[in-house]
Order: sequence, then C-alpha cells, then structure tokens
Amino acid sequence: MAEDAQRSGERAKRLPRAVREKQILDAAVAVFAQHGYHSASMDEISETAGVSKPMIYSYLGAKEDLFTHCIRRESGRLLEAVQAGIKVDVPPDMQLWHGLRAFYRFVAEHRESWTVLHRHALTVGGPFAGEVNALRGRAIDLVAQLVVSQGSRKGLGEQAEFSGKGLAAALVGAAESLADWWLDNSDVPDGVLASWLMNLIWLGFNDLVEGDVWRPRES
Amino acid sequence: MAEDAQRSGERAKRLPRAVREKQILDAAVAVFAQHGYHSASMDEISETAGVSKPMIYSYLGAKEDLFTHCIRRESGRLLEAVQAGIKVDVPPDMQLWHGLRAFYRFVAEHRESWTVLHRHALTVGGPFAGEVNALRGRAIDLVAQLVVSQGSRKGLGEQAEFSGKGLAAALVGAAESLADWWLDNSDVPDGVLASWLMNLIWLGFNDLVEGDVWRPRES
Repeated sequence: MAEDAQRSGERAKRLPRAVREKQILDAAVAVFAQHGYHSASMDEISETAGVSKPMIYSYLGAKEDLFTHCIRRESGRLLEAVQAGIKVDVPPDMQLWHGLRAFYRFVAEHRESWTVLHRHALTVGGPFAGEVNALRGRAIDLVAQLVVSQGSRKGLGEQAEFSGKGLAAALVGAAESLADWWLDNSDVPDGVLASWLMNLIWLGFNDLVEGDVWRPRES
Repeated sequence: MAEDAQRSGERAKRLPRAVREKQILDAAVAVFAQHGYHSASMDEISETAGVSKPMIYSYLGAKEDLFTHCIRRESGRLLEAVQAGIKVDVPPDMQLWHGLRAFYRFVAEHRESWTVLHRHALTVGGPFAGEVNALRGRAIDLVAQLVVSQGSRKGLGEQAEFSGKGLAAALVGAAESLADWWLDNSDVPDGVLASWLMNLIWLGFNDLVEGDVWRPRES
C-alpha cells in the first residue's frame, strides 16, 4: 500500500506542470459548468482531475483564482476558434458566415465552456463578468470591421462608420442570445443557427446598403 | 429646534406608506445605478430618499431585499411601457416597431432603471440575474408570437413555429445589446435605435418569408 502510494506519488511528480494544469482546468470547467460557481466544490474538482487539493491551490490558486483561470482559458479558446474559422480573403458576408459557423461549432463541441462563460461567469458577476464583457467587446470590434467594410464596398462608408459599431453590438447580442437559447434547445443542428442569423440579419443589412429601407407606415 | 424636529417627525408620519416606499425606491434605483450593488451604501440611499435607515429596513428590508424590490419595480415598469406601446390591431412588423420604440424610449427616459436591470442585476448574479432572465423570457415570448404570426400570414406557419422562438431570442438579444451599447453612445437619438434594428432584422426576416434566402457561396 505505502509502496503503491509512493510510486503513484513519484509518477504524479513526473508529470510536467502544464499537463497537470490542463487536467485541473478541464475538471474545473466541467464541474463549474455542471454546478455553477457557488455550488461547485474544490473536493469534486480535485477528485475529477485526479489531483490533490493542495496541488491545485499551489498551481492555480483557490476557487476564485481557479474560476478566473477557467474563464481566461475558455475565452481564449473561443476567440481562437472563431478567428481560425474566418477566411480573410472572402467578401464580408462570407467572413461573417464562417465566423458564425465557427462560433456555433465551438459552442456545440465545447458546451461546457460556453455554459461557464455565458451562464455562470456573467451571473456570478464582479470581475468574472468583466472578463466576459471584454471578450464581447473584442467580438463587437471584429464584426464592426465587417459591417464597415461591406458598407464601404457599397459606397456607404460614412453611414457604416456611424452605425457600424451599434449594428455590430446588435449582431453579437443576437448571436449570443441564440447560443444561449440553443443550450436548452439542442435538437436544432448547430449549422442551422448560423444560417438563421445570416438570414435574419445579413439579408436585412444587405437590403439596407442596397437602399431598401424599412419605414413605419401610418398606424 | 426640538419643536421643529417633532413637527417634521409628525409630518413624516403622516405620509402614507406607499409614498414613502416610492421615495425609497426612487433613491435606491438612483444610488444603485450610480455605484453598482456592492458599492452602494444604505447611508446614501437614506440620505437621498430623506428617509431614515430604520424606516427603510422596516418598509423594504436590508440592502439585498431593497435591490430585489428595485429590480421587480423596474422590470414591471419596463414591461408595462413596452406593452402600452404595442398596438395589437396592426401588422406584426408595425407591432414590433412600436414595441422597440417604446423599449428604447423607456431606456432613454429611465436610464437608471436600465442600468440597474441590465448592468448591475445581471453582473451581481444569483437571484437578481434570475429576475432579469425571467423578464427576458417574457420578452422572447412576446416577440415569438409576432414572428409566428408574420410567418403564418405568409403561409409559412410550420417553419415559423420551428424557428420562431430561436429567432425571437436572437432579436431580443440584439435589442438588449444595442441598448447596452447605447448607454455609452447616447449621442445617437433613441428613435434611431429602433429603426436600425427594424432595418437590420425585420427586412431580413421579411426576405426570408418571401423566399429570398441567403446561401453561402463557394469560398
């Protein structure tokens, strides 16, 4: 028994720190996604990761720090996935399409990441919500570039500059809200979500730059 | 002096409870909007309201309860304002238009309400976020009815039933996100926001029910 424990201790020691940290973060994301921040226990994270609590504290800190590490890693992965999905040498609508596809593919494949980022980090609040809002800001900047570039192609650069950031904020809010809805309605294939949004939003935007404007009628 | 205090005490007593509660809630919304939940102090709320702290505790409870009362009152006002803005005997797009106008008018006129509901309640988290999510759910239901009704007018009832709730979630997310963006960009008149959204979203939706579908091209 003692010899076993010693041997497993030696084996544990031999794992590089990066590998250990990955084990811990994978377990933490899973446990936080399932229980939320407040109800998640360090005992369960330790058990799921197969890493002792003292080692978790020493590598990544207590629960609050650990949660921050989770949010940062998952934010980074999400941004990377979306950026990798975007092809820069295609027209703006196709860039948006690829970006949305990559976003919903990420949500489908990393449901726990999205749950932690969108449901838990936002509702726990404080600095965690700040991290997610920074991520949202980067997404809005990315989309605003596409909107302005599409507007400029149509000779409406100035108008697109004026409304671009607001429209991008609306679009990102729509994409997020649809992803959140999808968590509870996962029978819809993830590819369909991107095409709903393109149809809902891009067609309208295209009409707009083509000069086809919706106006309220008398009523 | 003592006589004055006594007289003002009597005057205070004579105010009906509902009036006192309104004074307290008005002050609380203003203070919470300015400082956020955690930094807001009961002293400042008491001072702004001109109501003693013991009276606040006795009428509306301690800080947590008071914040819940604020969220409920502001949610209720927002819903009422939007519902009052919607005319039921006009086509779905005009209903949405009036609803969005009423929503952005409310945000413009009750900036503090929206700040408390959207920025603070969500980021403080816990049961507060739950209240706001319930409000969002009601807004999604309201918009889903419009989407389904527009789809049915065009003979696409079944398709609208399938996608209506998701599209409504996207639309509500877009409206919220744009209102949030507007808090930091209030030089845009509030009437413009509703028309941006109509153009961005409703035209796209209309194209969709008219059979004009966006499809990815080869690239």
